[in-house]
Amino acid sequence: MISNHPQLEREREREKWMMEREEEKEVVGVSVLHGGMIITMDEEQRVYRDGGIVVEHDKIKAIGQSADILAEFSDVADSIVDLSGHILLPGFINTHVHSSQQMARGIADDVDLMTWLHERIWPYESNMSEQDSYLSTLLCGIELIHSGVTCFAEAGGQHVSGMARAVGLLGLRACLTQSTMDSGHGLPPSWATRTTHQCIQSQKDNYHKYHNTAQGRIRIWFAIRQIMNSTPRLLIQTRDAATQLNTGIHMHVAEIPHENQLVMDVHKIDHGTVTYLDKINFLQNNLLAAHSVWIDNNEISLLSRAGVKVSHCPAAAMRMLGFAPVREMLDAGICVSLGTDGAPSNNRMSIVDEMYLASLINKGRGVYANGTTDPTALPAETILRMVTVNGAKSVLWDDELGSLEVGKKADIVVVDPSSWSMVPVHDCISSLVYCMRSENVVSVMCNGLWIMKNKKIIYVDEEEVILKAKQASVELLKRAGIKLPTRMNII
Amino acid sequence: MISNHPQLEREREREKWMMEREEEKEVVGVSVLHGGMIITMDEEQRVYRDGGIVVEHDKIKAIGQSADILAEFSDVADSIVDLSGHILLPGFINTHVHSSQQMARGIADDVDLMTWLHERIWPYESNMSEQDSYLSTLLCGIELIHSGVTCFAEAGGQHVSGMARAVGLLGLRACLTQSTMDSGHGLPPSWATRTTHQCIQSQKDNYHKYHNTAQGRIRIWFAIRQIMNSTPRLLIQTRDAATQLNTGIHMHVAEIPHENQLVMDVHKIDHGTVTYLDKINFLQNNLLAAHSVWIDNNEISLLSRAGVKVSHCPAAAMRMLGFAPVREMLDAGICVSLGTDGAPSNNRMSIVDEMYLASLINKGRGVYANGTTDPTALPAETILRMVTVNGAKSVLWDDELGSLEVGKKADIVVVDPSSWSMVPVHDCISSLVYCMRSENVVSVMCNGLWIMKNKKIIYVDEEEVILKAKQASVELLKRAGIKLPTRMNII
Repeated sequence: MISNHPQLEREREREKWMMEREEEKEVVGVSVLHGGMIITMDEEQRVYRDGGIVVEHDKIKAIGQSADILAEFSDVADSIVDLSGHILLPGFINTHVHSSQQMARGIADDVDLMTWLHERIWPYESNMSEQDSYLSTLLCGIELIHSGVTCFAEAGGQHVSGMARAVGLLGLRACLTQSTMDSGHGLPPSWATRTTHQCIQSQKDNYHKYHNTAQGRIRIWFAIRQIMNSTPRLLIQTRDAATQLNTGIHMHVAEIPHENQLVMDVHKIDHGTVTYLDKINFLQNNLLAAHSVWIDNNEISLLSRAGVKVSHCPAAAMRMLGFAPVREMLDAGICVSLGTDGAPSNNRMSIVDEMYLASLINKGRGVYANGTTDPTALPAETILRMVTVNGAKSVLWDDELGSLEVGKKADIVVVDPSSWSMVPVHDCISSLVYCMRSENVVSVMCNGLWIMKNKKIIYVDEEEVILKAKQASVELLKRAGIKLPTRMNII
Repeated sequence: MISNHPQLEREREREKWMMEREEEKEVVGVSVLHGGMIITMDEEQRVYRDGGIVVEHDKIKAIGQSADILAEFSDVADSIVDLSGHILLPGFINTHVHSSQQMARGIADDVDLMTWLHERIWPYESNMSEQDSYLSTLLCGIELIHSGVTCFAEAGGQHVSGMARAVGLLGLRACLTQSTMDSGHGLPPSWATRTTHQCIQSQKDNYHKYHNTAQGRIRIWFAIRQIMNSTPRLLIQTRDAATQLNTGIHMHVAEIPHENQLVMDVHKIDHGTVTYLDKINFLQNNLLAAHSVWIDNNEISLLSRAGVKVSHCPAAAMRMLGFAPVREMLDAGICVSLGTDGAPSNNRMSIVDEMYLASLINKGRGVYANGTTDPTALPAETILRMVTVNGAKSVLWDDELGSLEVGKKADIVVVDPSSWSMVPVHDCISSLVYCMRSENVVSVMCNGLWIMKNKKIIYVDEEEVILKAKQASVELLKRAGIKLPTRMNII
């Protein structure tokens, strides 16, 4: 025990340092950012070639031409930042993230779906401690910030307290959920005994503890892991609890053909999960349906009519699920946003890469329907809307997020397009979607505070998190009994 | 004219500096690289967990465990480099690159194929000066090196002299070709008058001038742009000239259904381009067939039997062409490698991203054939082979390239896997394919010389190239009369 004392000491110091950082987050003044190109993503699609933004506390106080902004606000500004040569955008919103799975990156590559779930992911997740969730979300958050994300929707994590600690510290914004299942075959023992009541109560408790905490950056949603792990009672009670608390529901929907078949067999309906969810009045405008790959035209109409939002995750789709009818959903007026999914499904947690993928795969998908690709499908401006305004609607936060406009929250990404990865920039909007890489994201502001500046994460020590997460993940895999085969002849 | 003198002066100084760098490339000694994990990609798939490599001049003199290598070679080494914590791989080989198109990045996004070709790419390419080709290849080469490429196959550029100058200077290795067409509808005036004889003669001249130059790093191949721009005479003469000079042929093959249909109509054959090329004995083991998307089972057999190599370009496939039967080609024993294609088709020129895409799309493609994806298809080790050993075979250089083995050329990539983009690394091989980004490529050696060290390109000034390429590309677009529509409301 004695040998642990210095470590405990360091931990305590660290916690104290973190608390101080937390407090600092509330001390803010007036900042003027000028000289950059500002892509507002407002309804008029305004782009200021040489624009200025005034940030006061957590909000945007003014936006316009640099010269006008400087003339009016230079005198009252606490800081004036010259962003010449840079591009400013609304913070990207990643609408499907398994932050608890970050430490499981690489544990389930190139395996079939059943191995993926039963031998890798469930053992990993069911063995996580609260500290593991904290570290995993910290590590995940670092990657999210580096790719320009200011807000994410958690798809269902393990320990909400750990996730909330991490999100609070990093300075991010998130809609957090707890992974929720009250039935299903082959569940790990610690999960198999959870009752419907416990599932609902635990989420309500989280709501009362963490909703609107961290200067309002954290919101608590309800989650349904997937229909094959939910009793009808859980679905109904979740729907009603979310309505009562005026919050959202995050659910994996129509991921694989097997899921639809099972739903058809059990519930005696025409088509899969979406048709069934409609029958029980689960489809409402507070539902964020992840993936939604295996849906037919009628189900697209059902989702559209109900105002359900869809999170499209191109990497996970290509790797495991199949190609969602994204063009058709957008045409039907469904709000489709983008998500990275979790590290073992992707394995890059970069919304920047996901933009690129979303455009590519949805241009290519036409081949199977029409015999040729459609290089005009999902143009760059549509993709940018998916990660900004559509993202904000998907997380039910579009009154404050998704565009750079007066009165909205100051969630801002700063991109440097002058490197070899983007030059030459002949078409600024398309370059952001097709050329930009996380390398080009230099600074990120969330809620009026810089959470990354010149590629340096502000509120946590990146190297320390990486080191701790490495250690914790090795121990977690050992505890969970997960062993990976070697692929080559390692000597 | 007077105002140009200072610039000319600077140009001359620059050229002198470049010549000095060129000469330096021949001064080399013995280097020991130790402490890193070495993925050899040799036939036994050996991976040294803590390995050492000895580089003498341009070749690998020894490889083994670090301790053994240090014990034997420390005394004779001119430099000893500790690469603890890093991963070493054979230099990646990008087998389909339009280096002359680098300055056209972003000029043809979200447009249909005919607009792409006739209104954007042909006007751009037909207006290029020799200096434009030089700058474009320099800019492209910088991006290639940053993504770990040491050797590339040019798909058909404009001015071979310009490309050769750039490749020579950067320290890269390349199989260069000249874009070659002797027929076709809608060609720009300066191209439409080229005779078959001129096409062949010009390439032979290039061969005699540039083959085996730049310390042997440059080889000259023949090119066929595509069948719709080639007379049968050009095909036959190209085949014979390449055989006579013992070099390769790079050709775009079976890119779109329309191409196959046209070939069937004109030549009265059963199926498309591959079937026709077989009929005229064009399919030989020195042919590198790019894309090869629209081929049937019989054509897969024809390619396999002839020993034709295929360059699979996943981004261009998804964006414009369709999904090649890669799994089927590999199963039939065809050597399939990876290419980025050109900047206006991709727009990322990163073989690192292409590895990721190749795995994703070929897992997903199964949906259409079998109703579900196949997450086990094209596992990470297969993808790594595609960019190393298969790449080397594709460029007919596997006697010296593609794996880290004694006697082979010292073409080496050094990866730092310790950043947020890759941590934790539970499965080293899959992490290199699914997590690694160009950010993780820190140093690159080609022909025994570091051409990038700690992310700094050694033999050219990156910022200067970027600046010049920006200017030149704007002028080129103006000269070519290319105007892009704006996508948003720019004020």
